[in-house]
Amino acid sequence: MQKKKIEAERIILGIDPGTAILGYGLIRIDGKNPKLMILGSIELKKYSDHYVKLKTVFDRIVQLIDEYHPDELSIEAPFYGKNVQSMLKLGRAQGVVMAAALQRSIPIFEYAPRKIKMSITGRGSASKEQVALTLQKILKIKDLPANLDATDGLAAALCHYYQTSVTVAKDTSSYKSWKDFINQNTKRIKKN
Amino acid sequence: MQKKKIEAERIILGIDPGTAILGYGLIRIDGKNPKLMILGSIELKKYSDHYVKLKTVFDRIVQLIDEYHPDELSIEAPFYGKNVQSMLKLGRAQGVVMAAALQRSIPIFEYAPRKIKMSITGRGSASKEQVALTLQKILKIKDLPANLDATDGLAAALCHYYQTSVTVAKDTSSYKSWKDFINQNTKRIKKN
Repeated sequence: MQKKKIEAERIILGIDPGTAILGYGLIRIDGKNPKLMILGSIELKKYSDHYVKLKTVFDRIVQLIDEYHPDELSIEAPFYGKNVQSMLKLGRAQGVVMAAALQRSIPIFEYAPRKIKMSITGRGSASKEQVALTLQKILKIKDLPANLDATDGLAAALCHYYQTSVTVAKDTSSYKSWKDFINQNTKRIKKN
Repeated sequence: MQKKKIEAERIILGIDPGTAILGYGLIRIDGKNPKLMILGSIELKKYSDHYVKLKTVFDRIVQLIDEYHPDELSIEAPFYGKNVQSMLKLGRAQGVVMAAALQRSIPIFEYAPRKIKMSITGRGSASKEQVALTLQKILKIKDLPANLDATDGLAAALCHYYQTSVTVAKDTSSYKSWKDFINQNTKRIKKN
């Protein structure tokens, strides 16, 4: 089966990886305006087995990458959780998503949830609904999905576009590596 | 290049995934006696970039799987860490290792560090050196590697063999899933 080549300057895959649901969104940038390609979510609650969840995530992300050929991956990555168990689980979900991207040599960028909300709506404390409605306006989305985790993935993609487009190129609040995050957030790191 | 087919009833890949160093060991079971195939470690400290570390881990594990065709993956998985940040990083390293195995449809088994030490030496509080020396005797290893993280990976492999061989088949202390772990360790889960 021959696929049509997608003409675009840049394609960004945004992901909000959770352990119960994973949201994703793809945008393409032709000229200056980002356009919505697709958004959706992967329901993981229905799988009781931890590894089936992880395999589902890995397979679906590889599938999205092979179908839409994103140039970059933007991940919503909270650095804080309720407890060490939930962070370990979240880390595993993130690791599986990252492995899928790394396998295809796609560069990864991480943004804290607050940073994404701020970037989209101008307010770090914006609600999921406010983020979704702002995305709807910017990307001219006809119907929003019932599940707003999909828009959270899309928000990560758009946030990365804003952070890396020319006007805000000097903004350093995206983290290229763990070390980078630590260096920029010495006060936020909890020392036990 | 044609590879020799490895004749063995079972091949187990054991991994101790750390964020600074990753240890691995492979054993084959012919008849009743486990035999050492290979053991080694992947130095990750030399890479400053977090994603380069993760990609190195993923590529090397896929390489090991494709070269030695293990039937099962056994991971040393601590469920406790100093803080949420270290657990998130550990979760990512584990997630990448798991993705490599899941991609090849290899079943994953996890064991807590204490469980592995207990299984190998009879003492849950045994030192790295004690574990290494016991492995040396059991598997008739001529020279132990300078770096004992490799033997920790090997210990995970042998522990899984002991837990799943006929005599201890009723032992339920291996965790098939997160839920399984929670169910078996309700008292160990820290509720915040």
